[in-house]
Amino acid sequence: MDNILNYDTVSLDEEECALEIIDQTLLPYEIKILKLNDLKDIWDAIYLLKVRGAPAIGVAAAIGMYIAATQIHTDDTEEFLKILHGKKEYLNSARPTAVNLSWALNRMEKVCMDNSGADVQQLCKLLKKEALDIKAEDTDMCRRIGENALSLLKKGDGLLTHCNAGQLATSKYGTATSAMYLGHERGYGFKIYCDETRPLLQGARLTAFELSGAGMDVTLCCDNMVASLMRQGLINAVLVGCDRVASNGDVANKIGTSVVATVAQRYNVPFYVCAPSSTIDTGTATGNDIVIEQRPAEEVTDMWYKRRMAPGNIKVYNPAFDITDHELITAIITERGILRAPYDLN
Amino acid sequence: MDNILNYDTVSLDEEECALEIIDQTLLPYEIKILKLNDLKDIWDAIYLLKVRGAPAIGVAAAIGMYIAATQIHTDDTEEFLKILHGKKEYLNSARPTAVNLSWALNRMEKVCMDNSGADVQQLCKLLKKEALDIKAEDTDMCRRIGENALSLLKKGDGLLTHCNAGQLATSKYGTATSAMYLGHERGYGFKIYCDETRPLLQGARLTAFELSGAGMDVTLCCDNMVASLMRQGLINAVLVGCDRVASNGDVANKIGTSVVATVAQRYNVPFYVCAPSSTIDTGTATGNDIVIEQRPAEEVTDMWYKRRMAPGNIKVYNPAFDITDHELITAIITERGILRAPYDLN
Repeated sequence: MDNILNYDTVSLDEEECALEIIDQTLLPYEIKILKLNDLKDIWDAIYLLKVRGAPAIGVAAAIGMYIAATQIHTDDTEEFLKILHGKKEYLNSARPTAVNLSWALNRMEKVCMDNSGADVQQLCKLLKKEALDIKAEDTDMCRRIGENALSLLKKGDGLLTHCNAGQLATSKYGTATSAMYLGHERGYGFKIYCDETRPLLQGARLTAFELSGAGMDVTLCCDNMVASLMRQGLINAVLVGCDRVASNGDVANKIGTSVVATVAQRYNVPFYVCAPSSTIDTGTATGNDIVIEQRPAEEVTDMWYKRRMAPGNIKVYNPAFDITDHELITAIITERGILRAPYDLN
Repeated sequence: MDNILNYDTVSLDEEECALEIIDQTLLPYEIKILKLNDLKDIWDAIYLLKVRGAPAIGVAAAIGMYIAATQIHTDDTEEFLKILHGKKEYLNSARPTAVNLSWALNRMEKVCMDNSGADVQQLCKLLKKEALDIKAEDTDMCRRIGENALSLLKKGDGLLTHCNAGQLATSKYGTATSAMYLGHERGYGFKIYCDETRPLLQGARLTAFELSGAGMDVTLCCDNMVASLMRQGLINAVLVGCDRVASNGDVANKIGTSVVATVAQRYNVPFYVCAPSSTIDTGTATGNDIVIEQRPAEEVTDMWYKRRMAPGNIKVYNPAFDITDHELITAIITERGILRAPYDLN
């Protein structure tokens, strides 16, 4: 199969003025590149998780908004901005809870506001530049996170990650995986362990896929095998991404993160959270203030399976995220540096 | 669907002289009762995990050996014993690593050795009694474990269990689940949580099935959700079974047990191991002396799924068991009483 690293997760095909993405719903079976220039198709791609991961969604939305702008046929700036605003709101509705989506779209609209003297053609150029800037900044941010994380690792380390905070969730490098890519380029010889990350299996389907595709030494395990690995001394550090950091350093991330963190603490394995500084939410005091979404029971009982794997009508507990208490976190690694306890992120 | 509690996991149909078992490979879809009197079919049932769980396998093998004895057509005691020994060895080969299988078969053969003056008809009667005794003792042992465990629990408790150490693994009551059954009979109103227990899903397929079938309040979750449950204070005690206890109190049990134990310790949730005293192996000093079997990669990547859920040729770590260090265990509950640290089981 084609190597996934030959492709950007999200990019702009300038010639065809199209959004180019890897269709992640087909992974790990098939690497299919989608070229989308119809706004409805772009909306669908975000809604149906063909592109996923907060940073990647932000970049896709920004490129989508630029493409939409090029399709507005008017020379009247005011009319242009009005139509563009409608398209922005439409894109924003694809995943209303994804903060990064509205952040990127707002930033795109602000370019127009900040250049009120520009004509429609000039605005389109500015929007294109802004979308490409958002992508370049995302790549740069991931790389910086990786450099910071790599400074904490040694050659030959066994590294465990959870879920997919990888290249497939960002423009490039990923957050939790960035140090793995950089270390791989530099011959660090890491031994990577991915837990499968039930129920949606992002670890098995996406992280194991992208890292083994990059030529790394990758071993897959079930979520409940991490203590067995650590008890044998096979893991030197855990690296995970994160969805939100509270002011006290508590972290919300994919369900199961706090299990890995708890086991890591028992075995004195450093537990690193890799996150853009934009995920630090100073408006949230502690993890207890973060509302956790419950997801459908069928994700646990039916999804992926040939037949349902649980008795009918059983109650199911299926939170999307959990809270990792700050005292379990060795350091929070952002593009700006390495934060350590006591965390006071206000 | 029929209630599973209407059936014994393993029994002797005296009229038809047949081994009666619930075919566990069809759960949770169908409760199918198998009546087996051909020795090859009984061997297959054990080999193919139609009957599983160390205590249940022992009972099934004992009943199988009795049935085999009734099918030996000779009045010559010496010839009878020779043929019976061959059938015993054949049954024992179905799962050679299951200690309880050979334990039960040896006990059956010893009955013949201890009654050397008996004729063939008398020996068959003695074998029948021994098989039924093994089953009755197993039920009694489970019930005693349950009474001891129940003494540590309160009405309304939230109880978490891992894998299936339930009625389906024993003659009746189970080990980890015994206190749940007894408490349910007595109106304790427990809230039971089963983790699914990847990769073989015994928690989802078997434990959730048998406990909800018994009318208990059961919630299923993924293995990586146990910290989320405990952080919210929903779990008052963890009860698990076990495969082997070392002299220092270290325990080998289904993979993932030590993850649950580690998380339980963090949240000050008592972690109880429920085990027949026969699983205490004084010949094993610590958990480090227990060899852990690695199982096929396909159990993690392919089994149950419509399509493979991992990249091709990925390395997989799939140990069948893990070691829970004694300092994570609040008490080991046997039919004889409640053992607490410091464990010295010699």
